[in-house]
Amino acid sequence: MNAAEDSFRSGEPRSRSTEGRLIGSVLKAFGNPPVTLVLPGGGHVAPAGEESVATVRLADRGVPFALARDPQLGFGDLYSEGRIDVQGDLVRMLEAVYRSSARAEARASLLGRLSGALRRPRRNSLAGSRDNIHHHYDIGNEFYTLWLGRTMAYTCAYYPTDSTTLDEAQVAKMDHVCRKLRLRPGETVVEAGFGWGTLALHMARHYGVKVRAFNISHEQVSYARARAAAEGLADRVEYVEDDYRNISGRYDAFVSVGMLEHVGVENYPALGEVAQRSIGANGRGLIHSIGRNYPARLHPWIERRIFPGAEPPSLKQMMDLFEPLDMSVLDVENLRLHYARTLTHWLELFEASAERVREMFDEKFVRMWRLYLAGSVAAFTTGTLQLFQVVFAPRENNDIPATRAHLYT
Amino acid sequence: MNAAEDSFRSGEPRSRSTEGRLIGSVLKAFGNPPVTLVLPGGGHVAPAGEESVATVRLADRGVPFALARDPQLGFGDLYSEGRIDVQGDLVRMLEAVYRSSARAEARASLLGRLSGALRRPRRNSLAGSRDNIHHHYDIGNEFYTLWLGRTMAYTCAYYPTDSTTLDEAQVAKMDHVCRKLRLRPGETVVEAGFGWGTLALHMARHYGVKVRAFNISHEQVSYARARAAAEGLADRVEYVEDDYRNISGRYDAFVSVGMLEHVGVENYPALGEVAQRSIGANGRGLIHSIGRNYPARLHPWIERRIFPGAEPPSLKQMMDLFEPLDMSVLDVENLRLHYARTLTHWLELFEASAERVREMFDEKFVRMWRLYLAGSVAAFTTGTLQLFQVVFAPRENNDIPATRAHLYT
Repeated sequence: MNAAEDSFRSGEPRSRSTEGRLIGSVLKAFGNPPVTLVLPGGGHVAPAGEESVATVRLADRGVPFALARDPQLGFGDLYSEGRIDVQGDLVRMLEAVYRSSARAEARASLLGRLSGALRRPRRNSLAGSRDNIHHHYDIGNEFYTLWLGRTMAYTCAYYPTDSTTLDEAQVAKMDHVCRKLRLRPGETVVEAGFGWGTLALHMARHYGVKVRAFNISHEQVSYARARAAAEGLADRVEYVEDDYRNISGRYDAFVSVGMLEHVGVENYPALGEVAQRSIGANGRGLIHSIGRNYPARLHPWIERRIFPGAEPPSLKQMMDLFEPLDMSVLDVENLRLHYARTLTHWLELFEASAERVREMFDEKFVRMWRLYLAGSVAAFTTGTLQLFQVVFAPRENNDIPATRAHLYT
Repeated sequence: MNAAEDSFRSGEPRSRSTEGRLIGSVLKAFGNPPVTLVLPGGGHVAPAGEESVATVRLADRGVPFALARDPQLGFGDLYSEGRIDVQGDLVRMLEAVYRSSARAEARASLLGRLSGALRRPRRNSLAGSRDNIHHHYDIGNEFYTLWLGRTMAYTCAYYPTDSTTLDEAQVAKMDHVCRKLRLRPGETVVEAGFGWGTLALHMARHYGVKVRAFNISHEQVSYARARAAAEGLADRVEYVEDDYRNISGRYDAFVSVGMLEHVGVENYPALGEVAQRSIGANGRGLIHSIGRNYPARLHPWIERRIFPGAEPPSLKQMMDLFEPLDMSVLDVENLRLHYARTLTHWLELFEASAERVREMFDEKFVRMWRLYLAGSVAAFTTGTLQLFQVVFAPRENNDIPATRAHLYT
């Protein structure tokens, strides 16, 4: 095949070659994004009508076949293996793909979207959750220290101003959460899913509360315990290596930041009951989670390679935490652009440490995580993903703030 | 029947008389609230264990039978007719009833609650909506001027401080809405359901926008048009006497305050489409509505006698406005305690004008509206009703405020 004869424009009548037909179907699956493809034989496919945002090189003749078999999973795996490469801004290119895919999806029938939502991720039974969480969070604390910043908080930060740094924004997020919960000295808090323990320490140190925090990632629990001991807070923060379903006791507040994505919608009523019995009639709670505009599976490559079992809910799905128990939702804030910024900062730190990551793992791992972080930025800037912070209280609790002004003074 | 022999405690083994058995079943239907009943024969029923919050007098021997036939509807009708009277604080008494009813409902099965939610109110077809709205809003503007305050706003106000007055709080609510929508001079707004036109005038005067507003209450439209002309704003505010389903054109913002309760959940996808096509890809919207913690019918007496067709949604039900169209929910604020305060202020003004209302209508009307306003205070203080203010935008609109601090400066 000669380069000139296999060059065509996406969305136009396809090249008659097998490769051309495959490429056409792959582009169609992504809604014909405005990117230029460079084919293994040297031919290229340019976007029709729109300016090209990046150039995507397919390294060998197996790539179009693998992509056609499973476009979503194929792209991620082939990129990780270096058989697909992107010249230009990776985030901008992925934003263009998310936008064109969303337009294609909007044209598809509601039935198609619903059936997509029905394909369920890996189950989160007690044992399943342990396996799923181990896969992502137990690959070594040192790796995460390279790019999460000083706080080791692995959730959406909060940027009060344009000049806020990543570390400042993570602290601001913790204060935002604590203010939303109106924590007072002497109160008790239970935390479901504590990451490396940062929020629990912050609450104990700056808000004078006692915290009992649950997590099933063994590496994170060890790290957090050492940290609490080193910072002299072990008497006020107890880290428990156990599942949220085993939380017991009564507390003034329930908080969970970045765990709900891993819980699975079928377990929301159970999690709601844990929250309700933890806070009784007079407490309050906050759940912070990645979400979606409507029920849909997480990107299949992310779910398969990065976050097994993960399933960001729509706000409607989140209501299964509260409605069966007559709990009142007091406040919902969508922070999706804050997560785009957080991820941009993580990606910058990750790139600065890419050499070290390559030594710790390998080139494939570096490319995989680069794609995951860049794709996540794009998912939040294009509204493919949302970030919901939800404050709730039992129905009859009237000890709730009259306005939200106290969050901003 | 002798008073002493028919006196017993609620929740205890019932009196053997027919009347005693009827009263026992009625109290049970309300979850045995802590009130003292005075029976027509002079006997009384005192609450078991709890302090009595009020005394309820049943005027004649037909009352227990009518109550037993339909406790919810019966109580409202018999109170309106003066055959039931309440000595003590009416709001406190109704709060006690809402609390005990909720506890009884929580003990009932989920199935029972679901079947309750399935009993649907009067349909809101185009013609049905006109009838339903006419019933409540077209009973004479003069009546509403007696107790709504200077702004004639008939929706939940917003009290930034404890000393805010009703009129100040209604203005603060309008500013809160306009700030959430970030209205800028020169922009256009479409309003679905405009009451007596207050918000539209406020937006035009203070935010420099042009407003096209829709309402099907003939009396309200006439009132609003006269007001716009008198205030010299007729060139910037157009009041259209038509259904929200007939809204056309493109605007920068969509706003609807206090209409959704009358729309009916089956029409949410249609209303969502109206909002979406009104604002296109770059606009934003706000919907303010009475809501509930879970799907349930409005109190049957309120639905039958006061607000035919009304159906406050749960937050999950509200999501049917946004999820089918891939719109993003940016902010939800629950203002239920603000509505309790607004209603308390309305009730005070209503009582101060009770004589005038009696002249305009009759004693039964006065008692009916007193019960409606007092019961509404109680519904919001006990969390039986919620008030949700929801800000939304099309998925890809990134021109959204970074934080909510601008609402509080």
